[in-house]
Amino acid sequence: MPKIAAGNGIVTQVNVFTTTPDRQQALIELLTEAANWARPTPGWMSASLHRSLDGTRVVNYAQCRDMASWEAVMERLKAGNFFERNKRLGTAAPGLYEVVYTLDR
Amino acid sequence: MPKIAAGNGIVTQVNVFTTTPDRQQALIELLTEAANWARPTPGWMSASLHRSLDGTRVVNYAQCRDMASWEAVMERLKAGNFFERNKRLGTAAPGLYEVVYTLDR
Repeated sequence: MPKIAAGNGIVTQVNVFTTTPDRQQALIELLTEAANWARPTPGWMSASLHRSLDGTRVVNYAQCRDMASWEAVMERLKAGNFFERNKRLGTAAPGLYEVVYTLDR
Repeated sequence: MPKIAAGNGIVTQVNVFTTTPDRQQALIELLTEAANWARPTPGWMSASLHRSLDGTRVVNYAQCRDMASWEAVMERLKAGNFFERNKRLGTAAPGLYEVVYTLDR
């Protein structure tokens, strides 16, 4: 189960895809395939797919051990042609982050 | 430590704030204050703040037990004037999600 914690050097990509209700499920299935394709990359840690309740977005919350691992994951996804395939199903808005604070019960 | 899992009915808000490098830290501090303010609400589960490596965004990944709890959290944040205070430091782009798939090592 993916966990969120600060101060561990993990690189997190939050990618917000804009889509339409009729394409949302197909996008989730393609991103599921992409996550399984990326998984063997050294340093890859997790992917978590989120469906927006209004049907217009999908968020992938993905974790890698460090920036070098992240770059290797990107190369592997490119080799699998996932960036081109994603484009038919939605528009990606990716960003790279570090966790700075968490609060829970 | 916040955990990500599918199939538990949890409502996740992913809020991507657009900001500037000179305001990013102040926004993180305000969102930290907001998380501590929201925490006593019944059903509130977690908040996790993420700093974009390029300085231009902050992501809050927040979890509530269900939609009613989420609405109560929104009311509490409104009472604390946090939505108005956030506006000075960045532009919010919130969305409500459910986790549909996770994969990790």
